[in-house]
Amino acid sequence: MIIIMKPDATKEQIGLVAEKLKKHGFGVHLSPGAERTVIGAIGDKSAIQLESIQMMPGVSEIVPIRKPYKLVSREFQKADTIVELAGGVRIGAGQKIAVMAGPCSVEGEREFMEAAEAVKQAGANVLRGGAFKPRTSPYAFQGLGEQGLKFMAKARERTGLPFVTEVMDTRDVELVAKYADMLQIGARNMANFNLLKEVGKTKKPILLKRGPGSTIQEWLMSAEYVLSEGNKQVVLCERGIRTFETATRNTLDLNAVPVVKKLTHLPIIVDPSHGTGEWDLVPAMARAGLAAGADGLMIEVHPRPDEAMSDGAQSLKPDTFQKLMAELKAVAAAVGRRL
Amino acid sequence: MIIIMKPDATKEQIGLVAEKLKKHGFGVHLSPGAERTVIGAIGDKSAIQLESIQMMPGVSEIVPIRKPYKLVSREFQKADTIVELAGGVRIGAGQKIAVMAGPCSVEGEREFMEAAEAVKQAGANVLRGGAFKPRTSPYAFQGLGEQGLKFMAKARERTGLPFVTEVMDTRDVELVAKYADMLQIGARNMANFNLLKEVGKTKKPILLKRGPGSTIQEWLMSAEYVLSEGNKQVVLCERGIRTFETATRNTLDLNAVPVVKKLTHLPIIVDPSHGTGEWDLVPAMARAGLAAGADGLMIEVHPRPDEAMSDGAQSLKPDTFQKLMAELKAVAAAVGRRL
Amino acid sequence: MIIIMKPDATKEQIGLVAEKLKKHGFGVHLSPGAERTVIGAIGDKSAIQLESIQMMPGVSEIVPIRKPYKLVSREFQKADTIVELAGGVRIGAGQKIAVMAGPCSVEGEREFMEAAEAVKQAGANVLRGGAFKPRTSPYAFQGLGEQGLKFMAKARERTGLPFVTEVMDTRDVELVAKYADMLQIGARNMANFNLLKEVGKTKKPILLKRGPGSTIQEWLMSAEYVLSEGNKQVVLCERGIRTFETATRNTLDLNAVPVVKKLTHLPIIVDPSHGTGEWDLVPAMARAGLAAGADGLMIEVHPRPDEAMSDGAQSLKPDTFQKLMAELKAVAAAVGRRL
Amino acid sequence: MIIIMKPDATKEQIGLVAEKLKKHGFGVHLSPGAERTVIGAIGDKSAIQLESIQMMPGVSEIVPIRKPYKLVSREFQKADTIVELAGGVRIGAGQKIAVMAGPCSVEGEREFMEAAEAVKQAGANVLRGGAFKPRTSPYAFQGLGEQGLKFMAKARERTGLPFVTEVMDTRDVELVAKYADMLQIGARNMANFNLLKEVGKTKKPILLKRGPGSTIQEWLMSAEYVLSEGNKQVVLCERGIRTFETATRNTLDLNAVPVVKKLTHLPIIVDPSHGTGEWDLVPAMARAGLAAGADGLMIEVHPRPDEAMSDGAQSLKPDTFQKLMAELKAVAAAVGRRL
Repeated sequence: MIIIMKPDATKEQIGLVAEKLKKHGFGVHLSPGAERTVIGAIGDKSAIQLESIQMMPGVSEIVPIRKPYKLVSREFQKADTIVELAGGVRIGAGQKIAVMAGPCSVEGEREFMEAAEAVKQAGANVLRGGAFKPRTSPYAFQGLGEQGLKFMAKARERTGLPFVTEVMDTRDVELVAKYADMLQIGARNMANFNLLKEVGKTKKPILLKRGPGSTIQEWLMSAEYVLSEGNKQVVLCERGIRTFETATRNTLDLNAVPVVKKLTHLPIIVDPSHGTGEWDLVPAMARAGLAAGADGLMIEVHPRPDEAMSDGAQSLKPDTFQKLMAELKAVAAAVGRRL
Repeated sequence: MIIIMKPDATKEQIGLVAEKLKKHGFGVHLSPGAERTVIGAIGDKSAIQLESIQMMPGVSEIVPIRKPYKLVSREFQKADTIVELAGGVRIGAGQKIAVMAGPCSVEGEREFMEAAEAVKQAGANVLRGGAFKPRTSPYAFQGLGEQGLKFMAKARERTGLPFVTEVMDTRDVELVAKYADMLQIGARNMANFNLLKEVGKTKKPILLKRGPGSTIQEWLMSAEYVLSEGNKQVVLCERGIRTFETATRNTLDLNAVPVVKKLTHLPIIVDPSHGTGEWDLVPAMARAGLAAGADGLMIEVHPRPDEAMSDGAQSLKPDTFQKLMAELKAVAAAVGRRL
Repeated sequence: MIIIMKPDATKEQIGLVAEKLKKHGFGVHLSPGAERTVIGAIGDKSAIQLESIQMMPGVSEIVPIRKPYKLVSREFQKADTIVELAGGVRIGAGQKIAVMAGPCSVEGEREFMEAAEAVKQAGANVLRGGAFKPRTSPYAFQGLGEQGLKFMAKARERTGLPFVTEVMDTRDVELVAKYADMLQIGARNMANFNLLKEVGKTKKPILLKRGPGSTIQEWLMSAEYVLSEGNKQVVLCERGIRTFETATRNTLDLNAVPVVKKLTHLPIIVDPSHGTGEWDLVPAMARAGLAAGADGLMIEVHPRPDEAMSDGAQSLKPDTFQKLMAELKAVAAAVGRRL
Repeated sequence: MIIIMKPDATKEQIGLVAEKLKKHGFGVHLSPGAERTVIGAIGDKSAIQLESIQMMPGVSEIVPIRKPYKLVSREFQKADTIVELAGGVRIGAGQKIAVMAGPCSVEGEREFMEAAEAVKQAGANVLRGGAFKPRTSPYAFQGLGEQGLKFMAKARERTGLPFVTEVMDTRDVELVAKYADMLQIGARNMANFNLLKEVGKTKKPILLKRGPGSTIQEWLMSAEYVLSEGNKQVVLCERGIRTFETATRNTLDLNAVPVVKKLTHLPIIVDPSHGTGEWDLVPAMARAGLAAGADGLMIEVHPRPDEAMSDGAQSLKPDTFQKLMAELKAVAAAVGRRL
């Protein structure tokens, strides 16, 4: 890291900073300038609290020159990670585009089966559905719990498609992992570090949604939590951030796709349903997501959105979804991918 | 709620919406206008999925006319809630200003005791310290766990001051509640609904921090989760939101103070340490928080900030804190409160 | 509009609101409910200050049911507007994709000519370049002024391509209009209403960039200013908004493309250069913009970005641009457009 | 500045960067580290385009170590600037708190006089009112123009108080300066650089509002435009920024007060009326603004807010204003100032 001293820092102050850095094992290079001195410190940043330097007299600013994450970084691993799900689904660079589709909540066995068959027929290769639902209101439908997991397992049996579902509580990780092919960490839990550690201890592929108030760097730090526990099967999912714009429920940040591709070897998919909150914006943003380079999409599909127990307004009907799949096929081909 | 129909909605479409509302127990009033029809629906909104109406043909927009929260609202309870902690500390309108102070993390018995005695001497009436720490990096100090709770309990014994500390995991609620006088839900866990339910089942006072990406309405909905489990002893804590401004770590949103006072009967305190991220901005924003009408403050104080294991840059030294307390006394008096 | 009264509004208060509305020519419908009364008011909203109703005793909330803009709205004009530039370039739905390319600033005659020929050869159909530059620093290069306009006019002569350039000052509108084929209102001037009126009085096509801190609705209101002066040749340009994310210079908001297509008949193009601020993110976001449905792109191209006097870091070299054009051709075809 | 090279930068690349810097007059210091080389460059940053270095092969990042502004910085001038208005009003550190009050728009002679006398009686020392109004809608009241300036001049004569009013167009600067005691640059024009230059050429004190989408650094750069033209009489005005929070019209960012005090010698005042958009939040935020250290306040007061032609909802009635002034007197005293 670089420590920039104040213009009026004294020699003694500079000396104390250099000394402290050396004491913690850093190699230290002084660059005395006409206006101010700059100190280069080479070593393991985690060996020291940055604040303890920041607060020393004469210090103006500290500039870290290494990223705070390690295992998830491109510098650590150049080759793209490919995440493998049951049923032969492979997610990542160069692979077939993953399309995860289904209703927001699992509402009943018959309803979910109907949705599962519809999305399979349209060409989706992963089922999605919620058994444990994080709802803003304590009075809203909270999901069917284990019963929902069972219905999804049945649909998997029938369709042959693996399924992804959210886990919200450290106490439920074992239970959800027993049924699901992929564990989703929802946007609200992106920084629930204990939950990240817990899913990091499983062998299941993880779908890590970006928190709506989180930077890309914080998102990668959350992925680092999972990898640091030994689980390297992580797929990132951009699903919209919080901005001042109210025309859409969230602002789907597609810029994250090429940025993430530069910074990490992990795959990234895009969720235009939560990202926009309105079904009639979903097709445009799904196409755009693929064109930006995403490795997959997560799309809410419901046989009768006007009867959905959650997120109906952003769900596609099966026929709209089928039409979209045809469009996506063309866009995927245009960017050298296939659906 | 109000359902606004599109200008070209047909009579039949209007009829179908009205019928569906009646079927769910709503009283329905049609207001046919020159340009479009407006439907007033009086009844229990939770009886129906808004989306199921939203998606009906001819519907343009739905306007809820009631707040989504109930128990926390001023309309439900006009009188200000006073939250009582051990040691006779009462937090809320008209009470003595609560000042919760101490280091970010509990780092050791001796260190915490030193801090506790310093803040007590300066006039703080609640101790704060972290035993379970949510850290962005998996490689950073994660807190002392139960050992940290024990150190805080000892400091309480010595100083007579109750203490507040964060609980991050549903599995730890019982443990933390065994020691602490007040359970803190940290900003990152504001929408961890299972955790909210769990602390709602305890009898302990709760300190609910606002999520940095959360609206005031969402924050109140999180409080509703706690109250809906039977625990009405909730204090809100504004600690800064995420904005584009980078001059401060967060943007402490003091506007939230008078807004919250209008919307709810719950007390609100302000955390200028996390809110700004820089110790030399803390005094100004602490004074401003009181002048805005806050019922208390949470301030990080560390005997040697440059040795702190977390958040040193935003911690006050004991002497700066003592000086600040004198200033706060004057501001509190100016707005009819006392410290 | 809908006026929602407070639950405890008295009959007299309701009567006074109704009376005031009638006095201003509104048709009034009362919907007395179990809990509160709702008043529907049909008429010309501009006949009254909303605040004058908002502040009457007993009033809880006012809900406008019409958009604040008129001439730009899809409801006012269903058919897509096609904007025509010199040289036979037509911008809008169903037309060939417009690609406006060139350096950020016009730096000299030779330099601009070189860039113009390069982008023409790659297939761009409109030249772009800045003669009047809005720079954050008063000490930075401010543009060549009229000299720059002359250089662009020469390049137009040579290449046959029309050019677009920014006008920043009401006093310069006449001058810039004398040379340019299209007048650009820059992001910082989106709400410079006098400037909008001034360009609205010209017959020139206008390129209206979105302000980085502006909602889509405010952007459309700015377009309304231009149309209300009689100039209907307006193209919108999404160029990124201000968010908390720092990985990109701005957050290019592609959601705006389908939203704008719903709300207005005006064409929309996307500027991935300013939208991301980094040249290596430009290709992905350019492709995504087309896939989202944009009618065109604005891309910064500089023969030697490392010598550019502004925005070099976000400029493509001619060969990268040429490669991108081939990719864009494929994406355009995939969504039923041509380049 | 500091140039951080990539870990795999070659010796040749490092040499080329150093050479280029030297050619532009920089003193260059190399710090070869175990992992990467860091180059310190001492000299006049404006002598070179940062991008031209940024884009050289092997360069990872550039860290400026000097602020981009100069004349406005505390480092350039340590002593607080005091801005003097006609009538003996002095604004700045240690001075009497400036209270600028009056209606949003000047609506008529009688109306403005009434407001002026009311705010004077309550203790305001500067009048405010708009003659040229930037309105979101082209169909809304746009102000009385010169007639409005004349009414304000009459009110000045009657009350003895100087007045501040907005100028929106470079073509109007001379006219407005003929009448007004202080020229206001509105939030929407904060980055209208030509307007900034134009007011910088006058001798009038300038009130520079912060743009709602602008960082503090950009705001100070706008002030630098004014100072660089020779006009040092600039007062900054915080009036709320754009965030995701919708409970208030803007998010009044009081953190800006202590931050600005650190970075610049210019005075800063706070506008809680625009900052919150709701009259009943104004008193709390006005008090908080003073407690945070502001040198003044700008408050909208209207004799009959429900008849105001703009911003009625955020205007105080004279009696509420009078009550607030008493509260402010107490808060000012508590922080060592006087009203």
